[in-house]
Amino acid sequence: MKDYNGLLAPAEGKLGILLPGMGAVATTLIAGVLAVRKGEGQPIGSLTQMGKIRTADGNQLIKDFVPLASLDDVEFGGWDVYEDNVYEASLKAEVLGYKTLQPVRAELEALKPMKAAFDPHYVKNLDGTHVKQFTTKLDLAEQVIADIRNFKAERECSRLVMVWCGSTEIYHEPSETHRTLAAFEEGLRTSAANIAPSMIYAYAALKEGVPFVNGAPNLTVDVPALLELAALTNTPVAGKDFKTGQTLMKTILAPGLSARALGVRGWFSTNILGNRDGLVLDDPDNFKTKEVSKLSVLDSVFHPEENPELYGDMYHKVRINYYPPAGDNKESWDNIDIFGWLNYPMQIKIDFLCRDSILAAPLVLDLALFSDLAKRAGMSGVQEWLSFYLKSPQTTDPAVRPEHDIFKQLVTLHNTLRDFMGVSRVETSNLEQYQDEPVA
Amino acid sequence: MKDYNGLLAPAEGKLGILLPGMGAVATTLIAGVLAVRKGEGQPIGSLTQMGKIRTADGNQLIKDFVPLASLDDVEFGGWDVYEDNVYEASLKAEVLGYKTLQPVRAELEALKPMKAAFDPHYVKNLDGTHVKQFTTKLDLAEQVIADIRNFKAERECSRLVMVWCGSTEIYHEPSETHRTLAAFEEGLRTSAANIAPSMIYAYAALKEGVPFVNGAPNLTVDVPALLELAALTNTPVAGKDFKTGQTLMKTILAPGLSARALGVRGWFSTNILGNRDGLVLDDPDNFKTKEVSKLSVLDSVFHPEENPELYGDMYHKVRINYYPPAGDNKESWDNIDIFGWLNYPMQIKIDFLCRDSILAAPLVLDLALFSDLAKRAGMSGVQEWLSFYLKSPQTTDPAVRPEHDIFKQLVTLHNTLRDFMGVSRVETSNLEQYQDEPVA
Amino acid sequence: MKDYNGLLAPAEGKLGILLPGMGAVATTLIAGVLAVRKGEGQPIGSLTQMGKIRTADGNQLIKDFVPLASLDDVEFGGWDVYEDNVYEASLKAEVLGYKTLQPVRAELEALKPMKAAFDPHYVKNLDGTHVKQFTTKLDLAEQVIADIRNFKAERECSRLVMVWCGSTEIYHEPSETHRTLAAFEEGLRTSAANIAPSMIYAYAALKEGVPFVNGAPNLTVDVPALLELAALTNTPVAGKDFKTGQTLMKTILAPGLSARALGVRGWFSTNILGNRDGLVLDDPDNFKTKEVSKLSVLDSVFHPEENPELYGDMYHKVRINYYPPAGDNKESWDNIDIFGWLNYPMQIKIDFLCRDSILAAPLVLDLALFSDLAKRAGMSGVQEWLSFYLKSPQTTDPAVRPEHDIFKQLVTLHNTLRDFMGVSRVETSNLEQYQDEPVA
Amino acid sequence: MKDYNGLLAPAEGKLGILLPGMGAVATTLIAGVLAVRKGEGQPIGSLTQMGKIRTADGNQLIKDFVPLASLDDVEFGGWDVYEDNVYEASLKAEVLGYKTLQPVRAELEALKPMKAAFDPHYVKNLDGTHVKQFTTKLDLAEQVIADIRNFKAERECSRLVMVWCGSTEIYHEPSETHRTLAAFEEGLRTSAANIAPSMIYAYAALKEGVPFVNGAPNLTVDVPALLELAALTNTPVAGKDFKTGQTLMKTILAPGLSARALGVRGWFSTNILGNRDGLVLDDPDNFKTKEVSKLSVLDSVFHPEENPELYGDMYHKVRINYYPPAGDNKESWDNIDIFGWLNYPMQIKIDFLCRDSILAAPLVLDLALFSDLAKRAGMSGVQEWLSFYLKSPQTTDPAVRPEHDIFKQLVTLHNTLRDFMGVSRVETSNLEQYQDEPVA
Repeated sequence: MKDYNGLLAPAEGKLGILLPGMGAVATTLIAGVLAVRKGEGQPIGSLTQMGKIRTADGNQLIKDFVPLASLDDVEFGGWDVYEDNVYEASLKAEVLGYKTLQPVRAELEALKPMKAAFDPHYVKNLDGTHVKQFTTKLDLAEQVIADIRNFKAERECSRLVMVWCGSTEIYHEPSETHRTLAAFEEGLRTSAANIAPSMIYAYAALKEGVPFVNGAPNLTVDVPALLELAALTNTPVAGKDFKTGQTLMKTILAPGLSARALGVRGWFSTNILGNRDGLVLDDPDNFKTKEVSKLSVLDSVFHPEENPELYGDMYHKVRINYYPPAGDNKESWDNIDIFGWLNYPMQIKIDFLCRDSILAAPLVLDLALFSDLAKRAGMSGVQEWLSFYLKSPQTTDPAVRPEHDIFKQLVTLHNTLRDFMGVSRVETSNLEQYQDEPVA
Repeated sequence: MKDYNGLLAPAEGKLGILLPGMGAVATTLIAGVLAVRKGEGQPIGSLTQMGKIRTADGNQLIKDFVPLASLDDVEFGGWDVYEDNVYEASLKAEVLGYKTLQPVRAELEALKPMKAAFDPHYVKNLDGTHVKQFTTKLDLAEQVIADIRNFKAERECSRLVMVWCGSTEIYHEPSETHRTLAAFEEGLRTSAANIAPSMIYAYAALKEGVPFVNGAPNLTVDVPALLELAALTNTPVAGKDFKTGQTLMKTILAPGLSARALGVRGWFSTNILGNRDGLVLDDPDNFKTKEVSKLSVLDSVFHPEENPELYGDMYHKVRINYYPPAGDNKESWDNIDIFGWLNYPMQIKIDFLCRDSILAAPLVLDLALFSDLAKRAGMSGVQEWLSFYLKSPQTTDPAVRPEHDIFKQLVTLHNTLRDFMGVSRVETSNLEQYQDEPVA
Repeated sequence: MKDYNGLLAPAEGKLGILLPGMGAVATTLIAGVLAVRKGEGQPIGSLTQMGKIRTADGNQLIKDFVPLASLDDVEFGGWDVYEDNVYEASLKAEVLGYKTLQPVRAELEALKPMKAAFDPHYVKNLDGTHVKQFTTKLDLAEQVIADIRNFKAERECSRLVMVWCGSTEIYHEPSETHRTLAAFEEGLRTSAANIAPSMIYAYAALKEGVPFVNGAPNLTVDVPALLELAALTNTPVAGKDFKTGQTLMKTILAPGLSARALGVRGWFSTNILGNRDGLVLDDPDNFKTKEVSKLSVLDSVFHPEENPELYGDMYHKVRINYYPPAGDNKESWDNIDIFGWLNYPMQIKIDFLCRDSILAAPLVLDLALFSDLAKRAGMSGVQEWLSFYLKSPQTTDPAVRPEHDIFKQLVTLHNTLRDFMGVSRVETSNLEQYQDEPVA
Repeated sequence: MKDYNGLLAPAEGKLGILLPGMGAVATTLIAGVLAVRKGEGQPIGSLTQMGKIRTADGNQLIKDFVPLASLDDVEFGGWDVYEDNVYEASLKAEVLGYKTLQPVRAELEALKPMKAAFDPHYVKNLDGTHVKQFTTKLDLAEQVIADIRNFKAERECSRLVMVWCGSTEIYHEPSETHRTLAAFEEGLRTSAANIAPSMIYAYAALKEGVPFVNGAPNLTVDVPALLELAALTNTPVAGKDFKTGQTLMKTILAPGLSARALGVRGWFSTNILGNRDGLVLDDPDNFKTKEVSKLSVLDSVFHPEENPELYGDMYHKVRINYYPPAGDNKESWDNIDIFGWLNYPMQIKIDFLCRDSILAAPLVLDLALFSDLAKRAGMSGVQEWLSFYLKSPQTTDPAVRPEHDIFKQLVTLHNTLRDFMGVSRVETSNLEQYQDEPVA
């Protein structure tokens, strides 16, 4: 077990949280943190704020166990293709109500997005005009770097993190351009078509040593070129795709079915949502990116190759439908065809009436605070222990299949925190183990 | 860690599985095991047959890792208030279809229940007549003991286990009669009203050193008198109430919500079922017993006293409705009112179209084989490691709240099996832990 | 066809709508009408305001076809066991939001309930103290009559109607006291236990010639004594039990299944609701009243005695559960077991996330305006044509089973309106009939 | 009112029912009729067999009221791209179970499909080889005509009808080829690409004076050329697309919402099915045809142009997903966003676990028997009164929007039957109307 304790720098000064994409998720996060600071609400769903960890002294709040940035020390900034200030954007997002927004209205109005690095090729259904002009993609990246530096100076931050909250980009595969940092930088100079906007932000962040987390299923920091840069600047990265509604349910339920050795013949998942995310995913190229992310989770939980009688013939289908009446109230409906004793069939239907941004906002907060912690602990590269939050977790070894079981992911997260603090992992005896992992 | 290895007696000879209550669950188990023996079906849902455990050599079938009785060495017997043979009872239960039953028809017809120890006071909605005559309850217990001995001799079994598959009895609280073995035996002699039929079977089994598992929510082996007897005869016990449909889903889903620090405001659970179990539970006194069992699970997962902001005000309601059109196809519908970031509400609806006996049968098998294993390992008293299978697990220390989180229950089960084999628990490092627990 | 036209008195002056029970339904009605008057909302769900009828001149708004009281000429009054003014009661009901209530706040605050005629024996779970003192039940009735007269004078109304919006009372059967008006009035004098509060209100209204509509499933105007009084004072009555969520769905869906000759084996209906109505129904005696009302609807649609192969063995079960997290957002879940060709089974599951008072408010409005219309048309006694709005419609001939098919009920309502106006019923030819009944 | 009575030829001799497409629907029909003949099952879902009609003498079975062909006088024949006999095809369809099929096995085995008129361009996902060779499409049509004549002669039928039970063809619009009979016949001679196989069958049938019903959403008899031919040969036609699961529910529920003047903001419909129909619809070109058919139903019920406040902004989306685990057990899930009083939103979710062919088979039977009746009544051209059975009813006047409200459709069907019998339509008075339309 590494001793991070000696290395762990304290959380002094202010932490700047930079958000490319200031739509529903980002504005819900910001308004929420401001409201919580004023005592006007609870940061439900955030492990850094509400979660506990079992220690020798019993269950302890995670934020009392590890030195995290306080919500009082957080500054928000970001970029967007629309020029609405955060208050206006919150109203349009229709996630938080009047009562929540009024007390923090003035602060939200003061927050204005910087002009976005945008490329309509990657997101066809958006038409924002609050975008940067540029000559080459290198020029564009340098503008983002300048934004980062200005923000840090103006807001007097001692540290920064960046969490991508923008749209899903169209599907593309890694290519030569993405293979080495040198090739990538050559691509920037020649404005290579396969350098997506999310990569520009990631490049800028990593270049500045700012941890980068990818909340969308885009191909971004999961290319060798940017991992090379992360290693070079000793910067943590994590990705990808916030694990919110349907996939969250899947990674809860599938381990349960597997625990009981119940077979699965089919899993049909459909979603209806009406926010900007839904509009973007209405384009088949963008949906492809999301679909790949959403389809991967079951196999790593079920291991069909090891359990062919149970999961060898499973048919898994995922659909996302743009349905404006739903707004941000994303709804998912799953039909799961399982089978038990002597292969007799049974079914589970799950209708999850969720709120996309309400589920995502606390994940952004946790990922921001934890990646700052990782940076202070001297960690760099892929932070696999943050898989808990992600639909398609990156692994340190790309050849290893990621773990999707949310319960194993949580054990890993807790154990990593214990490692940071130089505390030994709880040794479980037959009698003690029942109290091994605390709730919440 | 105890070294059970040296103590672990091999699984030589035949294992008799005795089942008080030969209705839908028991007949589904028996027909299924016979079918599996003939290669006519898979024992899906059974960890002892299909499940794996992670060892130093990778994932291994549990039945290859610990010395369990083979399905080929199992003999079935039991008692019922109706005199139908197992084939007839299977037809009436309408769980298994024609194609499943035909190949094993002759064997099933040969299996006839012994006369039951019955008391209509405890199960008002049944009117069976295939019951024992008796003078005192002690006489009744001695008749059951004689049955056990005869069965063992006739079937040439080397070992026995007993799993209660009978109906839910009416609700009653432990009293003086149940406090000591002496008081209990005095109660048998005086035919004390608060000695339920299930206690008669348990007494008989434990007296004979036969492990006893309680598959219903009845007050049975969870009284001091019978635990005293179990200790005296060095016999394992486990209980209570098979964790099948709705509660299974609850103990999968609740840990997931808790993992994410999502709050719960209400959980409404309703069930419709039309089998004999449903008929019995249509009586409010019997339903009370089941309700207490079903209501307990959430608190131990959510720890509302430690997490009042998240779970302090949760309203939990459970309903069971007798609905003949459903037959054995028990259906549960849950509405869960959760809340997230800034307390915004969301909902999850789960419709589980399950088959009660299909889910229960493999649990009976596992509990039988594992309690036999425990006996051979020299264990006695409450087998808390079998909580995985039970809705209201008994704990070794009655003052300790049972663990309901199915994922923690599974870790405990696996670790106990490792203990039996003298294998060290897998030490998890940050890198290795993802592969820590195998599926199925 | 009667010629009501010559008889139909115009809707001159103000119409007072008197509401015994000023809880969620009544306050939602009042706030809504005030909002609509200000142009702040639409009276969706109200046929008198939004509905159309096919006439010789094409589809016409019902309110343009028959002379109804205008919303501008309506005055509201009522009684309640709590003294909250209508604004406060609206806030507590949590049906309408801040944005709806603010523009009409002052008007709502000015509306205060009169003290209620209350008897805790009939509604055990309420404990209101804003109640009338009285010597005999006759005294109590006379106080209500005085209230009616005062209200009419103070608000300068030319006409009144009364719609019961109070709680469900406990179940009781008609008895001698209810058989004749003379017996009833003797019962009032001797304070007979089986005269429920709702009967006091109905008696007072009918005595004054004020139409009375019963929105709850109580035994009220459906006793001979009060029908005798209605005939005597030439007053219309209608009842009983507003047809809102689950039963509304039933009377829509059942005619559809019947139209297709699809069989029904079982219909299981459960409800969760958390408002005052739910609290009252948590008492088994009050639930009994509601259950009887809710169970009756299917038989009159399916006619099992005429169609035994399809509906002869149908098992129908209804459950209502008090579940506070739902508040006024009543949710119903139905499982319907149907069968088709060669008796193969299929299922329909309906989850209706409704809002009880949002569905009920427009019914109260329509019933008030239509019963005023009936009064002006010189009709008296049971207004069977208003069955469209009611879960347990009263019939003019008590020996005749009521019609529950909502589509037939609507045809009757339309035809009655045509009768009022002396317009002949639309003669349908093979070609024209498709346009026979307009929507909405 | 026309007097068909004098014209109505009796149902003498045998009726041949010819089915292009002998997959799940056709085989379920045939096996079912044979089983019913043997008294082995009930023709549930068939109005001609189980339904009643109100007459002067009370409710009467439809088959006793109008002279229909008896099930004993029916002969089945058909074409398919696979050469399986009807027993084999039934087994593969997995609709009817072993117990249903065994008693009629021999008869089913004797029924073998004729070689199909097939064009893979119209149904890409099928690869059948049991197809006719031909030079021109005229040649192909003449082969089908020869088949019809041979069948009639061999089976000694006095009359024939043809009901298309084949797959959904790809979407195409009517063109010049379809405008006149002359152009169409020229197209046959030149093998015009836009003459689909379904049109070949329809041409052949109509040429022979055999009524043709289109059970799929294909462009078939709804083109002027074939209507011209129908008029020429005095032959009834009807179409299109059997109204089975989700659309059936829609045309039941939508009239109910409309009756209550409840608004609809969105209606999302998804389907999962795994039979051959699902496979065909997995191709976007074929799905387009079905989508157009399924989308049309709501507008004609809601009349958004007349009721813009209620239905003007409704968002309607339909999805069909090929999901093999479902087999023929088609499941539809609908989310309906409605709104009521003051525009407050509510939701209805419907999960219909149906069986596609179980619902469709009785429709085929009714359409066959009723179109034979129409023929005998001397009717020709579009039989609008059969709209009750169809998702996209053809209208006699193509400029008139079809009626989709299933309750109005049923009234029309009943009235047409009364017309056939020269019985006057029931005159409804205020008192009698409740008994106006019988169930089933």
